[in-house]
Amino acid sequence: MFKNSEFKHNDETLDTPFLFVDKQIFLRNLERLRKEIEGLGAALRPHFKTVKSLDAAPYLLLEKASPITVSTVKEAEALASEGYTNIIYAVGISAEKLPRVHQLLSKGVEIRVLLDTVEQAQILNQYGNDNHCTVPVLIEIDCDGHRGGIRPDSPLLINIAQLLHHGSADFQGVLTHAGESYLCFDQASLRAAADNEVKAALKAANHLRCADIPCEIVSIGSTPTAHSYQDLNGITEVRAGVYGFFDLIMAGIGVCNINDIAASVVTTVIGHNKEKGWLFIDAGWMALSSDRGTANQPKDCGYGLLIDRSGKLLLHHQVITVNQEHGIVGSVDGSSIDFDAYPVGCRLHVLPNHACATASMHAHYHVFDTHDNSHEVWTRILGW
Amino acid sequence: MFKNSEFKHNDETLDTPFLFVDKQIFLRNLERLRKEIEGLGAALRPHFKTVKSLDAAPYLLLEKASPITVSTVKEAEALASEGYTNIIYAVGISAEKLPRVHQLLSKGVEIRVLLDTVEQAQILNQYGNDNHCTVPVLIEIDCDGHRGGIRPDSPLLINIAQLLHHGSADFQGVLTHAGESYLCFDQASLRAAADNEVKAALKAANHLRCADIPCEIVSIGSTPTAHSYQDLNGITEVRAGVYGFFDLIMAGIGVCNINDIAASVVTTVIGHNKEKGWLFIDAGWMALSSDRGTANQPKDCGYGLLIDRSGKLLLHHQVITVNQEHGIVGSVDGSSIDFDAYPVGCRLHVLPNHACATASMHAHYHVFDTHDNSHEVWTRILGW
Repeated sequence: MFKNSEFKHNDETLDTPFLFVDKQIFLRNLERLRKEIEGLGAALRPHFKTVKSLDAAPYLLLEKASPITVSTVKEAEALASEGYTNIIYAVGISAEKLPRVHQLLSKGVEIRVLLDTVEQAQILNQYGNDNHCTVPVLIEIDCDGHRGGIRPDSPLLINIAQLLHHGSADFQGVLTHAGESYLCFDQASLRAAADNEVKAALKAANHLRCADIPCEIVSIGSTPTAHSYQDLNGITEVRAGVYGFFDLIMAGIGVCNINDIAASVVTTVIGHNKEKGWLFIDAGWMALSSDRGTANQPKDCGYGLLIDRSGKLLLHHQVITVNQEHGIVGSVDGSSIDFDAYPVGCRLHVLPNHACATASMHAHYHVFDTHDNSHEVWTRILGW
Repeated sequence: MFKNSEFKHNDETLDTPFLFVDKQIFLRNLERLRKEIEGLGAALRPHFKTVKSLDAAPYLLLEKASPITVSTVKEAEALASEGYTNIIYAVGISAEKLPRVHQLLSKGVEIRVLLDTVEQAQILNQYGNDNHCTVPVLIEIDCDGHRGGIRPDSPLLINIAQLLHHGSADFQGVLTHAGESYLCFDQASLRAAADNEVKAALKAANHLRCADIPCEIVSIGSTPTAHSYQDLNGITEVRAGVYGFFDLIMAGIGVCNINDIAASVVTTVIGHNKEKGWLFIDAGWMALSSDRGTANQPKDCGYGLLIDRSGKLLLHHQVITVNQEHGIVGSVDGSSIDFDAYPVGCRLHVLPNHACATASMHAHYHVFDTHDNSHEVWTRILGW
C-alpha cells in the first residue's frame, strides 16, 4: 500500500480542481537524473516543455548558461527574457519562425534549430544570406523509426550537413530521441533502447566526421532512456522532460515509482451513483487532459489513479470516464467502493497518465514544500 | 469533394499553430439552432464551455438577460463582469464553491446551481441559513444512465426537492442531458434520444408537481438532441455547446456537415518521411488536444482530418499520431501522398474531433470574417 505523508498539505482553501506539485519530490527527481547523467560524463539538458514555467527554471537550470531544450519559440523567448542563453528548439524548423529565432540570436541567445530535410537547410541558408545572420542548427537523427529524422548511415545526412556547413548556417551537430522507448516495460529492453539511442547518435557523428564535417554536439534523450544509460562516452548531452514531475506512464515503464510522481490534480467528490458504484469528481478532461497514454501498458490506469488525503492509493478504483468538467471514478475489478469513506465534498488527488498533458491544462500550478510548509503559485507559459 | 472558399484568408503572417475560427460559419450555426429551438417554443440557453470567450458572448447572448449555461464558476464571474445575469452552473455543486456563487447572487446575478444528492441539498440549506442567502437550484435528472442525476420516477427526487423547497434554497426545476445521444449515428436514433430526453424531463417535472412542488424550469439538451427535437411542449429551455463551432464528432453523428465546422487548427508542414509516406506538421496534442472522440464512430478520423489552403478535404489522409508539438499525417487506406503538393513550409487546416477540447488548448482564437475580411483575436477564459 502506498503511504506518503507528503501529500498532506494545508490546501483546503483552494477551489478544486487545481494542479498540485510536491516541490520536494520534484527537486528529488531533478537531482536524481542530473547526478546520474553527470556521473556518466555528459551534460543534462532538461526539456522545458513539461514544466514550462519560469518559476521552475531556476531548479532546472543552475546557471544562466545551463543547457535547456524547448518545444516552442515562446518558451525560448520567455527563458531569454530571464537571461538564459543556451537553448535547443527541438521541433523541426519552418521559415515563418526564423525571424523570432533571429531576434533571439541578435540578443546573444544561442538558440539552435532542428531540421531533417534538404528544403529546410536551403530555407535556413537563404534566410541567413538574406538577413546576414548565422543560425546554429542540428540535424535530427532517426534512431528507432519512431518519428522524424534521418537514419545515421544515410547519404542524406551528409548532403544536408554539407549544405549547412558550406552555407550561411552554423552546423553544430546531431540530435536524436528514442521515442520507441515508451514501449519498453522491463530493464533489459530499456537498456537496449538506451544503447541503441547512444549507438545511433555516435554512428551519425562518426559518419559526419568521416566526411570532414565537424560534429560538436551529440544530443540524445527521452525520459525512459535517460534513466537507463550505462555508457555515455562520446555523447555530449542528454535531454529529458517529464522526469521532474513523472507520471503513470513512466511508472508503468518502470523508471519511477508511484511515490515519485510530483504532480497531481486535486479534485472534490461532487456526487455518488450508488447503483453503479461511481463517484463523480470535479476533474474532467479540462483538468486531467484526455491523455490515455497508459492504455497500451500492462496496467491501464484509465484517466488516472487516485490517492486519498491520507496518502493512500485507491487500489481498486480509477478515473474511468471524463467529460469536460466531470470525472467518473469506478471500480476496475468489480469491487465496491466505500461511499462513506469518500463522501460528497471530500478531496482526492488524481495522479496523471501523462504529466506534460495534464500540466498543459493548467495556467497555474500550486506548489507545496513540505520542508518549510510554503505554498507557491507557478505560472505556465501559454501559446506558441 | 469538399470545397469551401471561406477557408481562404489572409492569415499567412500568423505563426502556426493557431486556432482559426470562420466567423460567418460560426454565426450561421448559432442562428440555425436558435431559430429551430425558438420555432418549437422553447428558449435556447447556449453552453459557454465550448467557446468560453467574452468576445463571443454578444453572439451567443442577444441581451444581457439572455440565458447561458456555464461549466465553471470562473465563466460565470467573467459573464457577470460584462453584465450578463441569467446563468446555470451545470456541474454538481460542492460546498467550497458556494461563497463565489453567493457573491454573484449578491451582485444581482441569477446563478443557479445543480445537484443530485441529499448531502448537497443539506449543504445548500445549511449555507443559506448560515449566510442569509437563497441559492437558486436545479435537480439533475438522469434520462439515459449516461452520467449523474436522479431517475425521473425516483422517490429520491421528491425527497431532495422537498428538502430544498422547505429549506433556505430556492428550488427552481430540473435539468437533464442526453449524454448517450453521442452514440447515435442516424436520424431515427437521434430522434429517439431527443424524445427520451424530453419525456424524462417532463416526467420529472410532473412527478414534482404531483407532490405539490413547483417546477418552473424544465431544461434539457445536448448538441445531438438539440438538432433533433420534434415537440418541445412543456420544455422551457434547451442547452447546447459545441453547435457553434461544430466538429468531426458532430459530423459523424450527422447533425452537421464538414463544411459547417467553424473551428480548425492552422499548421505548417515541417518535414517529410517519404519512405513511410508521412508529413510532419507543427500541430501536436498541444494544439489539437488528445481527444479521440471519433475512435468509436463509423468513421474514425484519427486526431483530425485535413483541409488544404484551397479548401479541399484530404480524402485519404488524416493526423494519425500526435506528440506534444508534432503531428504525423499518414494515409488511412494505403494510398500515397503527393509530397510535391504539400511541400515543407505549406499550411494545412486540421478539423478537430472535438471542438471543446481543441479550443481548450488555445488561450486565443483568430477569428476571420469573410464578409468584411476582418481579423479578430478572441481571448479564452482560463482556469476555474
